[in-house]
Amino acid sequence: MAQANLGLAAGKVPAPPTLSVVPPRPQCSASRLFAGRDILGTHDLSMTELDVILETAERYACALENRERLRVMDGKILATLFFEPSTRTRLSFETAMLRLGGSVITVSEAGSSSAAKGESLADSIKTVDGYADVIAVRHPMKGAAQVAADAASIPVINAGDGTGQHPTQALLDVYTIKKEQGRLEGLTVAMVGDLRNGRTVHSLVHLMAMFGNRLMFVAPPGLEMPAEVTAGLRSRGVDVYETHDLEEVIPHCDVLYVTRIQRERFADQAEYERYRGSYVVDGGLLRRAKPGLTIMHPLPRVDEIATDVDMHPGAAYFRQAHNGVPVRMALLALVTGSV
Amino acid sequence: MAQANLGLAAGKVPAPPTLSVVPPRPQCSASRLFAGRDILGTHDLSMTELDVILETAERYACALENRERLRVMDGKILATLFFEPSTRTRLSFETAMLRLGGSVITVSEAGSSSAAKGESLADSIKTVDGYADVIAVRHPMKGAAQVAADAASIPVINAGDGTGQHPTQALLDVYTIKKEQGRLEGLTVAMVGDLRNGRTVHSLVHLMAMFGNRLMFVAPPGLEMPAEVTAGLRSRGVDVYETHDLEEVIPHCDVLYVTRIQRERFADQAEYERYRGSYVVDGGLLRRAKPGLTIMHPLPRVDEIATDVDMHPGAAYFRQAHNGVPVRMALLALVTGSV
Amino acid sequence: MAQANLGLAAGKVPAPPTLSVVPPRPQCSASRLFAGRDILGTHDLSMTELDVILETAERYACALENRERLRVMDGKILATLFFEPSTRTRLSFETAMLRLGGSVITVSEAGSSSAAKGESLADSIKTVDGYADVIAVRHPMKGAAQVAADAASIPVINAGDGTGQHPTQALLDVYTIKKEQGRLEGLTVAMVGDLRNGRTVHSLVHLMAMFGNRLMFVAPPGLEMPAEVTAGLRSRGVDVYETHDLEEVIPHCDVLYVTRIQRERFADQAEYERYRGSYVVDGGLLRRAKPGLTIMHPLPRVDEIATDVDMHPGAAYFRQAHNGVPVRMALLALVTGSV
Repeated sequence: MAQANLGLAAGKVPAPPTLSVVPPRPQCSASRLFAGRDILGTHDLSMTELDVILETAERYACALENRERLRVMDGKILATLFFEPSTRTRLSFETAMLRLGGSVITVSEAGSSSAAKGESLADSIKTVDGYADVIAVRHPMKGAAQVAADAASIPVINAGDGTGQHPTQALLDVYTIKKEQGRLEGLTVAMVGDLRNGRTVHSLVHLMAMFGNRLMFVAPPGLEMPAEVTAGLRSRGVDVYETHDLEEVIPHCDVLYVTRIQRERFADQAEYERYRGSYVVDGGLLRRAKPGLTIMHPLPRVDEIATDVDMHPGAAYFRQAHNGVPVRMALLALVTGSV
Repeated sequence: MAQANLGLAAGKVPAPPTLSVVPPRPQCSASRLFAGRDILGTHDLSMTELDVILETAERYACALENRERLRVMDGKILATLFFEPSTRTRLSFETAMLRLGGSVITVSEAGSSSAAKGESLADSIKTVDGYADVIAVRHPMKGAAQVAADAASIPVINAGDGTGQHPTQALLDVYTIKKEQGRLEGLTVAMVGDLRNGRTVHSLVHLMAMFGNRLMFVAPPGLEMPAEVTAGLRSRGVDVYETHDLEEVIPHCDVLYVTRIQRERFADQAEYERYRGSYVVDGGLLRRAKPGLTIMHPLPRVDEIATDVDMHPGAAYFRQAHNGVPVRMALLALVTGSV
Repeated sequence: MAQANLGLAAGKVPAPPTLSVVPPRPQCSASRLFAGRDILGTHDLSMTELDVILETAERYACALENRERLRVMDGKILATLFFEPSTRTRLSFETAMLRLGGSVITVSEAGSSSAAKGESLADSIKTVDGYADVIAVRHPMKGAAQVAADAASIPVINAGDGTGQHPTQALLDVYTIKKEQGRLEGLTVAMVGDLRNGRTVHSLVHLMAMFGNRLMFVAPPGLEMPAEVTAGLRSRGVDVYETHDLEEVIPHCDVLYVTRIQRERFADQAEYERYRGSYVVDGGLLRRAKPGLTIMHPLPRVDEIATDVDMHPGAAYFRQAHNGVPVRMALLALVTGSV
């Protein structure tokens, strides 16, 4: 069949078979799909692109598991530019680059010395553009990753830009759900905590909705999922349920995605204490859960999940953090055309 | 001769020699002794284990001397997690890992961003556990290294935990004494300075006592070696001498181990000045020393040792600092089973 | 044909050609010229030495361009000791070392923990001396690089010492002028901004004067080039022109080297605003420039150069920053004898 597609008719002398009949290796097309691209958000990713990322990540996860020594990025340099500290994300990116055989240069100061002297983000990026092969940028300002990508000639990966996007977190969340649940469709996913300000949940909601999952949003009053997000989801036919009550959703969900509620979001401290107390996931609460429940958290946790839950077979939050390495390996390798 | 020892008689058909007559390589047993272990303190180290560490360190020191390119940790990652700054110790660990062919990820902020958000040390460690192959942790809190080791599945090396232990410093001290004096037994070792608060001297005292050395403690009133330590040593039969007078011990000691006296330990500044002044090691003082005296200091020094002493052949404190590299190479390679 | 050139006649028995006729490779002599040396300033560099540095840099620039994987410093360690933050310079040094196949250990804290405990710079250097193969040191104190070099047994490269020197910046500036203009002689070079305090321009002035270029100094009153510098240049026969007026020099110069004017240098803020405004390089000003003008800036810029100038073909400041990598590669390789 492949031969027919290649226009070979019976009686014709075929070209040497090793050249003509071998289908293009998936990594070649993957490379073609992503090489040179920026990863600024998840909204513009197609289903195919998402598949390529998840499959590449899975391939790297196997390589890590088997302690294979990868060198696909030997001689290449990642610049991790963290204009806002985020130890976990920075170390995850750096680990990913080192596991691919590459090297890292890092700025992890709250404000870099150049920024302190009044340099624009674009100028900082234009300088580093001549040092590295790929940039992972973290910045407190929404839209900073786009500014960086516009200034750079090399690929830029958004490692979180304020209230903007954090695509590598969303992708490792999706990867984790697929790995823990075995599928990305037909799931009931509950999201708990500050759903108004959490950029992580916004990106994840978008991705899970793509696959036709049921979504349950559990937030305290004032921190609910923005109305335009829920309206947008419902207009796309997504089944969305909203509540203030965590106990109510527990028996129904396959995935419980917990986030931190930040004290400073509340004017009334008594109200904060009340919600904080009611949104603690502990062994008691989980007795009413479905078997096979997956519990996730982007970390760091404070006390939203009791430590006795860590022993629960579905407590996936540390595995989730570890999944950041193969997912970021996949992105680094794909955008630099190293796959 | 080797054949006779193995019980092979003439006329017998020997088993294939490559399999039967090669004795187990010592590094295999060393690896078996340490692979997967944490190094939290020196109190639980046996004489054999100490020997293995010192011999492995000596092997690596020779390799460094000969500029051999080692790759035994190629592809492996060390996480240096310094929740309290200590430039010298951090750089020493990182150098050790790089010299073994490995890579490094680093947290050297006073407080990591996750800790600032309220994350527990155990949670921080559980995350990094999925990134690295071995962790070196420094923390201001006594017992932190044990907490880290309990949380981690990979080996943890204590790089100093508050007033707790600092085993790699103690081991490089012992290694230095052996290298400078040619032996670890039968020495008179004087320790000078703040002996109450110095975790370094406590660990070193324990190790030197194991080898039956004579110990002299020189400290200002109020900063003496804790009574339970001296009592414990004497009950084990160790010859211990205590004094406030540095000049008195100089003619007797083979090793003079000087530590910093911190101004903030004194309520009375005049008393601080008096002791600070009387505990300065300079050329004048050393005229009364035994030939072959070794002068050590864990560094940084302020003015406890005059800079004119640096030219003294027994001034070993910078060599001591440099010895940290092969000693830490040995520990990193041993606990990861890479020897 | 090659044989004829080597003077071999038919019938003669030639000497073994590989030994007798191969001329010494230039890199061998380059290595002999620099191996083990410190790079503290540019004043002591001869024309030959400058040539070797620029040629070695050009060779590495080609290698980077061709994405060659270099390994000449495989197994070697650079210590970047930045006792004063300078993100751009630090990342440039680290990139240079990584591109040569080497590794990096870094101190980039404003004050290292040892310095905070009262350790002298010399002691800090003597410790790191046992870790690394080469040191790049940045320090706020003039003369610090010399102190470091005196304390170290390994080569020290000055990465800027307060109002002292910053030789790697001066060398990358010269390299950039040569690359942009195709030559280093017979040029009119205008320097604009704070010429009194700018160490960069002092070093560059010295180097450009060596090649017999015409120099134009444009500075606000009080921030002029020090009188002893201009007197020294004139006594060497250098053509020097001084003015407060930027517009006046624009039609004459081949290279326009712009530096930042720091607000804090002015007692009178109104005066600052007036000069700041008159020293902005923008599209309007450049309409009167010679074709082929090269515009340089050590970066970071604040608003001395309008961003619309970035599109000008002669806007070389980002290329200038990128040139720091091959120039620092050359210095690192030369002083460690790795060329």
